[in-house]
Amino acid sequence: MKNNTLMTDFYELTMAQVYYDAGMKDEMAYFDVFFRTNPFNGGYTMTGGLDEVIKYIENFHLDEEDIAYLRSTKQFSEDFLNYLKNIQFTGDLYAMPDGTAAFPNEPVMTVRANMIEAQLLETYLLTSFNHGSLVTTKAKRITSTAKGIPVMEFGARRARGAGSAIDASKYAYVGGCVGTSNTISAQENGIPALGTMAHSLVQAFDDEYDAFLAYAKAHPDNCTLLVDTYDTLNSGIPNAIRIAKEYLEPNGYRLKGIRIDSGDLVYLSKAAKEMLTEAGLEDATICLSNGLDEYSIGDYLAQGAVINSIGAGDNIAASKERVNGVYKLVAVEKEGVIEPKIKVSGDTVKTTNPGYKKVYRFYDCESHTVLGDVITLSDEIIPTDKYTLVSDKDPWKKTTIDDYYVRELQVPIYQNGKLVYQLPTIQERQAYCQKEYETLTERITDINNPHTYYVDLSNRLRELKQYMLYDVMEQVGKTAKQYRKER
Amino acid sequence: MKNNTLMTDFYELTMAQVYYDAGMKDEMAYFDVFFRTNPFNGGYTMTGGLDEVIKYIENFHLDEEDIAYLRSTKQFSEDFLNYLKNIQFTGDLYAMPDGTAAFPNEPVMTVRANMIEAQLLETYLLTSFNHGSLVTTKAKRITSTAKGIPVMEFGARRARGAGSAIDASKYAYVGGCVGTSNTISAQENGIPALGTMAHSLVQAFDDEYDAFLAYAKAHPDNCTLLVDTYDTLNSGIPNAIRIAKEYLEPNGYRLKGIRIDSGDLVYLSKAAKEMLTEAGLEDATICLSNGLDEYSIGDYLAQGAVINSIGAGDNIAASKERVNGVYKLVAVEKEGVIEPKIKVSGDTVKTTNPGYKKVYRFYDCESHTVLGDVITLSDEIIPTDKYTLVSDKDPWKKTTIDDYYVRELQVPIYQNGKLVYQLPTIQERQAYCQKEYETLTERITDINNPHTYYVDLSNRLRELKQYMLYDVMEQVGKTAKQYRKER
Repeated sequence: MKNNTLMTDFYELTMAQVYYDAGMKDEMAYFDVFFRTNPFNGGYTMTGGLDEVIKYIENFHLDEEDIAYLRSTKQFSEDFLNYLKNIQFTGDLYAMPDGTAAFPNEPVMTVRANMIEAQLLETYLLTSFNHGSLVTTKAKRITSTAKGIPVMEFGARRARGAGSAIDASKYAYVGGCVGTSNTISAQENGIPALGTMAHSLVQAFDDEYDAFLAYAKAHPDNCTLLVDTYDTLNSGIPNAIRIAKEYLEPNGYRLKGIRIDSGDLVYLSKAAKEMLTEAGLEDATICLSNGLDEYSIGDYLAQGAVINSIGAGDNIAASKERVNGVYKLVAVEKEGVIEPKIKVSGDTVKTTNPGYKKVYRFYDCESHTVLGDVITLSDEIIPTDKYTLVSDKDPWKKTTIDDYYVRELQVPIYQNGKLVYQLPTIQERQAYCQKEYETLTERITDINNPHTYYVDLSNRLRELKQYMLYDVMEQVGKTAKQYRKER
Repeated sequence: MKNNTLMTDFYELTMAQVYYDAGMKDEMAYFDVFFRTNPFNGGYTMTGGLDEVIKYIENFHLDEEDIAYLRSTKQFSEDFLNYLKNIQFTGDLYAMPDGTAAFPNEPVMTVRANMIEAQLLETYLLTSFNHGSLVTTKAKRITSTAKGIPVMEFGARRARGAGSAIDASKYAYVGGCVGTSNTISAQENGIPALGTMAHSLVQAFDDEYDAFLAYAKAHPDNCTLLVDTYDTLNSGIPNAIRIAKEYLEPNGYRLKGIRIDSGDLVYLSKAAKEMLTEAGLEDATICLSNGLDEYSIGDYLAQGAVINSIGAGDNIAASKERVNGVYKLVAVEKEGVIEPKIKVSGDTVKTTNPGYKKVYRFYDCESHTVLGDVITLSDEIIPTDKYTLVSDKDPWKKTTIDDYYVRELQVPIYQNGKLVYQLPTIQERQAYCQKEYETLTERITDINNPHTYYVDLSNRLRELKQYMLYDVMEQVGKTAKQYRKER
């Protein structure tokens, strides 16, 4: 397989040329990946994409043909191209494991590497994180609303291309889905492949009964029949019952279930349940599909719909949303001294948190639910007895907590270019994500009107940020003054 | 590379087992790909994804490991698995070329193949079409609103994973973008790689001036400076002007331009233009980026923003939309006789158009713009002198046209499993898409409130559909009656 190291924005390379020329190639840089808002107007984000980042870094190098391509763009010196021939990742990466509950402005990943390597990683880290966390979060929102009813990921056809479909089905599983319709993803990721029939099977036969019978004969032990091709209650369910009685039961099988993919799902599911029960098929499951998401599932359940499983297509693999993760330079290291960096913005919320940092989460000792997070400079120590959380936005809002335990959220992934992290299996990641979800309070997980979780800055970090903002403003003032003088 | 034939929904395979067992493996099926609404509340859709479909079909086969995997799911017979070992595509595919203007309910692709092959293609055809047409359409909406101002595709980091990013940048180019930030896509697809610097470069140096100077030294002939890291008008532009005067001009170069990525882009672009012009840099281009789309670009242009180029990230590669293409069985062929099939739905607009069909487009002889489309059965002949278009939805609405020429929209891609289509180069596809766009009237391309274009059914097709609907209803009635009798 061709290496995909050049899945990077071209400006990463033109900037790398500048760092090279300026003698900065061995200067160490610290970059944070973070996002500014939770997707889906939600109260939390479940991280994803670290697995793809690891694959990328493990294969991070350039082949002859890549160097030749870069040469052809006429933007790079031969010296620099020579340097690129031997490039590999030699830095450090810290990250929250996939499936971690994360909140706006927290560094979900931190890269410490030389300027060039760190810059070149930007695009892939962001693409992977943005997609992985988008799908994992949506899946968790949907599966948690389903309250234990199995949710199957059926979205391959609506995903953004084949690669996206395969990735999405994986993150959907981490977010709590029980399996996927995507066969190659099931094969590659070791998760269940699910699905039975589409309308085309019913149409391909002369009538619905014949189609169902053929299906029952081929899959007697896994016979879930799609009942809405012509008319759910007047044709689909009656034919399904006939199949159960006339073919499956005489042969020692039970009708596994039915799927309804259109119409008024609440009404139809209740009516179907009645008809099935009346026919002695109370164990037949009812699967609903057709654009389901956390809102419609919650609504249907509240209305008493009968749902034994859910097929979610579009909304997990192809939700109409984005996670807008960014990658910002927060420090450089010169001769062992870390020098924090800041990016200001006319829009205050877009000003970055400077410095090499860590994120800690406080948990209640009794309920084991989260109390708040704090972002600190890397060398700060969190006291174990008492801590005062101070709101980043409104510093006069303070809460002192004392009955807690604390956990650092990022873990080492790479050290000096060496992978030091054992990626958990996908089943472990699913279990971890569920455990993470269970640490969140109902106020945070509320689908419609969530509470804004506390992510605070330590006093030292807040003061550093203030100080640096003044400093930048002073520098801008000088430049502006000189400009006016020269006019 | 591992073949990706199993990028298919698992139910395609469980259904294939049924067709196999029922002795239908050599029965020919006709499937249409179509969509029901234009994305972005738009008046048209530009097709995409045929290129990926061709790649998939060219590599359509199963390896030993795939067979072993399928066996492990315990859903398939050994006979059938043996059959799958030798599967390849032996059928026909007709499709609109990538970049064609298409409208709801038109068959953009039609597959004629045996039941099993046709069924297995479903997922990949849909994934490819849905993604390809989504991005091509969005890019065309944005580039057409930009009215000749070059639009660069910068969305890799926000795309749905790496594969999606690479595909998206390709379709963005077909839709009229001038190039991409995605280096590997530029390399693979032969399109320009674009981009110069990010904020991190400015931050990495002690001050903005030093960063700009280092950039100018490394890229004197391609020096576009990002000016909003600290303060666009008070710092960025003054420093850019100094670079032009103090370094570039003394060395025989000109400042190529500046990019503004935040703030009030209309105001800033006008002020920047004034400052640059005052400094004798009237040829420096102004590039705007930051979440631009067809709406904001139209708005900014109306307000007199100075825009020489546009960087569009999120909105092309990661728009918050979907194309919901579907794949429906429309006919089967038994002993040479084509038997149309229909899928009814409680929701009338979801009822499919039955039969093996063709789509024709009428053009005005003088303006060469479109007059209307008609979907016909495959053996109908379109008269060259006069045609009456009859609305599908409101059959009493009729328009007779006479000064037209007509074009069939699908072209043969595969015949008997053989690729008979030469995929145009990406530059040719871009030019074709633009030509297609130019055949649309302003009413159709209107961004905010487009006219609904006429896609009509021929009389024969409309009658067939009516007839089949009655037929289905009669069958449903019989099933329901029998069911009630047995209770």
